[in-house]
Amino acid sequence: ELRESQRRNPPLGSHAAAPMEDVVRVHASSGTTGTPSFIGLTAYDASRWSECIARSYWAQGLRPGSVFAMGLSIGFFVGGLPVAAAVEAVGATLLPIGTGASDRLIAAIRATKADVLATTPSYAIYLAELAREEMGLDPAALGIRRVMVGAEPGGGVPAIRAQIEESWGARCTEAIGIADLITIHSAECEARDGCHFMVPDYLIMEIVDPETGAVIPPDRPEIEGELVFTHIDRECNPMLRFRTRDRVIVKTGPCACGRTGPRLRCIGRADDMLILRGVNVWPSAVRDVVAGFHPEATGEMLIRVDGEGPKVDPPLRVRVEAGSAAGEGLAVRIEQAIRARLIVQARVELVPRGVLPRTEMKAKLVERNIS
Amino acid sequence: ELRESQRRNPPLGSHAAAPMEDVVRVHASSGTTGTPSFIGLTAYDASRWSECIARSYWAQGLRPGSVFAMGLSIGFFVGGLPVAAAVEAVGATLLPIGTGASDRLIAAIRATKADVLATTPSYAIYLAELAREEMGLDPAALGIRRVMVGAEPGGGVPAIRAQIEESWGARCTEAIGIADLITIHSAECEARDGCHFMVPDYLIMEIVDPETGAVIPPDRPEIEGELVFTHIDRECNPMLRFRTRDRVIVKTGPCACGRTGPRLRCIGRADDMLILRGVNVWPSAVRDVVAGFHPEATGEMLIRVDGEGPKVDPPLRVRVEAGSAAGEGLAVRIEQAIRARLIVQARVELVPRGVLPRTEMKAKLVERNIS
Repeated sequence: ELRESQRRNPPLGSHAAAPMEDVVRVHASSGTTGTPSFIGLTAYDASRWSECIARSYWAQGLRPGSVFAMGLSIGFFVGGLPVAAAVEAVGATLLPIGTGASDRLIAAIRATKADVLATTPSYAIYLAELAREEMGLDPAALGIRRVMVGAEPGGGVPAIRAQIEESWGARCTEAIGIADLITIHSAECEARDGCHFMVPDYLIMEIVDPETGAVIPPDRPEIEGELVFTHIDRECNPMLRFRTRDRVIVKTGPCACGRTGPRLRCIGRADDMLILRGVNVWPSAVRDVVAGFHPEATGEMLIRVDGEGPKVDPPLRVRVEAGSAAGEGLAVRIEQAIRARLIVQARVELVPRGVLPRTEMKAKLVERNIS
Repeated sequence: ELRESQRRNPPLGSHAAAPMEDVVRVHASSGTTGTPSFIGLTAYDASRWSECIARSYWAQGLRPGSVFAMGLSIGFFVGGLPVAAAVEAVGATLLPIGTGASDRLIAAIRATKADVLATTPSYAIYLAELAREEMGLDPAALGIRRVMVGAEPGGGVPAIRAQIEESWGARCTEAIGIADLITIHSAECEARDGCHFMVPDYLIMEIVDPETGAVIPPDRPEIEGELVFTHIDRECNPMLRFRTRDRVIVKTGPCACGRTGPRLRCIGRADDMLILRGVNVWPSAVRDVVAGFHPEATGEMLIRVDGEGPKVDPPLRVRVEAGSAAGEGLAVRIEQAIRARLIVQARVELVPRGVLPRTEMKAKLVERNIS
């Protein structure tokens, strides 16, 4: 719908509520579902983004005096310039390195004694591997105390989080956002019991039934549904009841940190969900099971699906990278774990380390074979 | 000296005049002469940079309403975040694309009707080639009206400028700067008779004899020497009589545009100069001669030198890429042109198109074979 609006009224679409002369910057969504969409920001919008992202980083522990190594792509990506501005707004020191120069990123962390690393969960793991295996450095000795992750699920997956924390000798916290709305709308606090919704003055949050679109009232301690947002303080490209396709569990009670607002855990994207004989399977949940076998498995995996889904015939076919310590019957043990945890039958194929694609951005968990 | 200071007092060196807590961002020089150096900016420094760069872009014709396609690397590079901030300060619309996604850059120019492209001269030529040959688009039809180049010589070289202007159907202007001081200190106006020194309230400019270091007084219409700068409004990493190694010609008279300050033309870096039997040869001057043969030659060339230089035994060995329309005796004709224009004997070896390395950043003009 957004893409269609922009095709008809380029570049920002008929929902651009500000003249192009007032737009100081255009970002693009990475377009997980197809063509990227353009996102226009006025100077006011950019300052609001910066303030809201700064709040989320503060909740995650960024402070004046922190040295923030930015391992997020800087460019069209909404995690680029807006994150950079937010870090400077907090009063921390920004190392604007981006992706694509991994050895330089590690060298800079070392030289400047950076204590915070921000990146995707996949790239956090990749960087630790690179430091250890190609640069002969122990990532845990580099001095990073916090790894702040986002831009793909992973960070909320316990086994992946544990792998990141172990590699870096650091505490890992997660933040979530969506390009068409804002870089970060929710972030974890020290208690790490879900991501606090940080921007009630910027977005109205609703949780809806993904089938019917009906709003689910927050009348229980925990509700589950699709996140829907409406901008209330946006000059260009405001969204009205924007369906994020993010499937979330929301805790409505107070948090140990003292914050009283709702907090979210993203369990997957609506587009990603697979259904095997009536059982819902989130690829990130499969990844969690696989990551639990580290170091027998590297943690990298890829689900192969015939057709568009979401319906898939069992068994669920999963390629898993064998790790340095792969023991007897590993494939069968992973299959058993998937059945025990996710109630679906799986067929695991072990592949050698390094075979599955690494990425600096969003990890791909499902490969669809559409004929 | 800077590198040594930073090695002893990491990360910013003993010339860092602000505590790390006040440093909001660290950039790195690209280090053409060796190890990169780190450059710390306080919030005040960053705002001063942004204002000074904005002035230079204004002189080059950037205005509110312009759509600015940023084809400069965004990351540690001082042409990244500082340029982005300056463009927004002018009130133009920024497309923060960076390098490394060339097809996306061209697609975005097309979709947003961008009218300004900022990049290195090499990348401007590469992008035009890519649009024409791989995307089937005429770059001149994309609507770019101004190509603003910098970060390597080229832009001041007439034949390269002509090639950029012809490819893009646009006017090309140049700006010059130096990472350790400021992204841009001088930029061309409409008259294009040298780059106006834009920041007399930020830097003191001196022109010195590169041999003796003696200051050359601006008492003639045109003087030549090495650029030396001193910061007068910088909180972190201020430089005192910093030798840029940039060799410049300075015009001291008034400009047709009405500006009265001095204006510079960079003729090369001290490190790049070659000497053949007492004759000074700047690689960028050789490139100018070669670029004049377009479309018989692509314009790409590489000088091969044995040893560290600057002294080189004739003939000057130049590899030149043959273009689509290479005619009879091209190599000999280029040799003759180099002798006529630069007074040195050259030996030209023609190589097929695409053989010489393309770069998104600074083009390499000299390959040194040090045994």
